[in-house]
Amino acid sequence: MVYFDNNATTQVDRDVADLILKYMTEYYANPNSIHQFGVDIENDLEEAREQISEAFKALPTEIFFTSCATESINWVIRGVAKANKNRGKHIITSTVEHSAVINTLKQLEREDFEVSYINVNDKGVIDLNELSKNIRQDTILVSLMAANNEVGTLQPVDDAYKIIKEKNEETYFHIDAVQAIGKIPFDLYKYKCDLASFSAHKFHGPKGVGILYKRRGTRIFPFITGGPQENGMRAGTQNVPGIVGTAMALKKSIENLDIMNSNIKNIRDHLAEELLKIGAKIVTPLENSVPNTLAFFFPNIRGDIIVNALSEEEIYVSTTSACSSKIKSFSRVMESMGYKNDEASGMIRISLSHLNKDDEAELFLIKLKNVLKFLNY
Amino acid sequence: MVYFDNNATTQVDRDVADLILKYMTEYYANPNSIHQFGVDIENDLEEAREQISEAFKALPTEIFFTSCATESINWVIRGVAKANKNRGKHIITSTVEHSAVINTLKQLEREDFEVSYINVNDKGVIDLNELSKNIRQDTILVSLMAANNEVGTLQPVDDAYKIIKEKNEETYFHIDAVQAIGKIPFDLYKYKCDLASFSAHKFHGPKGVGILYKRRGTRIFPFITGGPQENGMRAGTQNVPGIVGTAMALKKSIENLDIMNSNIKNIRDHLAEELLKIGAKIVTPLENSVPNTLAFFFPNIRGDIIVNALSEEEIYVSTTSACSSKIKSFSRVMESMGYKNDEASGMIRISLSHLNKDDEAELFLIKLKNVLKFLNY
Repeated sequence: MVYFDNNATTQVDRDVADLILKYMTEYYANPNSIHQFGVDIENDLEEAREQISEAFKALPTEIFFTSCATESINWVIRGVAKANKNRGKHIITSTVEHSAVINTLKQLEREDFEVSYINVNDKGVIDLNELSKNIRQDTILVSLMAANNEVGTLQPVDDAYKIIKEKNEETYFHIDAVQAIGKIPFDLYKYKCDLASFSAHKFHGPKGVGILYKRRGTRIFPFITGGPQENGMRAGTQNVPGIVGTAMALKKSIENLDIMNSNIKNIRDHLAEELLKIGAKIVTPLENSVPNTLAFFFPNIRGDIIVNALSEEEIYVSTTSACSSKIKSFSRVMESMGYKNDEASGMIRISLSHLNKDDEAELFLIKLKNVLKFLNY
Repeated sequence: MVYFDNNATTQVDRDVADLILKYMTEYYANPNSIHQFGVDIENDLEEAREQISEAFKALPTEIFFTSCATESINWVIRGVAKANKNRGKHIITSTVEHSAVINTLKQLEREDFEVSYINVNDKGVIDLNELSKNIRQDTILVSLMAANNEVGTLQPVDDAYKIIKEKNEETYFHIDAVQAIGKIPFDLYKYKCDLASFSAHKFHGPKGVGILYKRRGTRIFPFITGGPQENGMRAGTQNVPGIVGTAMALKKSIENLDIMNSNIKNIRDHLAEELLKIGAKIVTPLENSVPNTLAFFFPNIRGDIIVNALSEEEIYVSTTSACSSKIKSFSRVMESMGYKNDEASGMIRISLSHLNKDDEAELFLIKLKNVLKFLNY
């Protein structure tokens, strides 16, 4: 098979999986138990937190473990809203965010919060002037993604931070960094923010582990309450096997950034070139995107028809995001970029990982051409 | 080592761990992807849901996957409160519930909800008369545990259900079944309720998977919003490896109930007998408790001193629950049962699993006697 759907999820790295197995069957104590077995596991948990904080250039006390990025994002939005509502009830995001952001904000709008949605240009880049104009005295949070999940566009989150803090230094800035990790060098010194969300299963770590970075001093309420875990900020027994696996996966994904930015980028750019030759329109801005993502469409062909035909050949690509693809067959992100409805419903997304090889790309092209021939394209 | 702390967490079953490994490294697709690889994994996810629903005698559409029981409990309490607040703002629980219930209700009390805490008798059993008297027209939820985590007492949740529905058929009943699964036969036909919470890592499944049972028609808001996963009720990519592992672990835990209720109960009862002989006071009501749990204390000795001394001999028992043991050194549950403060700070909890053996119990007794001798007891 050819797996080109790595923005949806990735294969867990074999060493990471072996480590997780060890922690499930041998080092299984509850890190909150007071006996030595528990203390040992707590030490391993804290070592994982330290490793992750170092990779992000944060403090260990600024790293919190959750069950997925969607939980981290819910925590950010609801937790900041609750803890800061006396200061204001205005939140800013963009029109191209993940459904975890958009749908959670839609809920808050029903609870009397006001949300401004910043538009993007034809390359999917947010309008920084519009952002600047929308920041008010009562703006408590701006949430933006670092890299778009559907088309791969990189957002100017470093500039956004400066603009936000200049206009209102009390406005918190949250970066949804889910699609950036493992694709571009990312740390919180370069990408300044108050809060950031991450998901392990997007960088060859396990499903079921998310991370929240919370800068020291950021006012946010806990989201899941109960026991004293995670310094009282996130109750529930920590998923230690998943967390130690996540620390290893993050380390490896950083080591693989070179492959990502040379070999994988080359494969992606080569695919774009070949796709152009056979009539595809490229949606991803190649010069300003994560190197693994390529969104395109063939005018007048629905994306799901091609995705399904390729699937029968065990070539796995996607239409929009996995979280949206079952509800609607067109790309909300492409719509925001100004594409017409029938173009947006043509979207096909290839998303590579460092594990993909040149010959897979060649096989993909052969199979795609067969599909197009079959469709009399 | 001797691991007698299975109410805190359990070793993941080896077959379960191997299955999880397979799903992490081979069957890793996102179940929400539309290609065949995704559809195959979605089918496996739904098969796991079906297996679990059958074990509980529920419908598959009544089973939702979360990240832990604490999340399930937060969802129940906050989701029912939000969805039913126009009907009433009164909730009932008992004084011996897990911190996930107690601390989440404390939050709601700050948001204008009223909570009644039902007392227990000297065996830890809730007062059903008091429960009955407290149910009002505006009572939207009663939350009770099936088995107590610290002392093992079984609650009359079947009688509670009848009393609640007789007094107010619109009051929802939530069972915290975390400590019941794998220890007593538990299904939702016998234990009727509207909502129930479960945790995989308490029955030799993985950490990071919780279950929520929601009876068809129960009005509750989603807790984590975003994508359409879990029928729109719980957003975030499902932890498929953990979930298929949970289904297998549940099946195995039901197969092991015979061992639990014969061998393990015998070991527990034998330990109680021997402990009595050397001056211990038994807290667990042996005739009305899960068969694996034994709480006791030695008058005038702090529990943590014995737990730590045994820990040095690689015998792992606990004081109170893992979620509480680091904050305070006495058992809130024992306090509620009428024990004095110095008695409650003496609590030691043994919690067995079907993996424990007679010779481990003998070793425990020898080591404990050494510790007591050393303490001049």
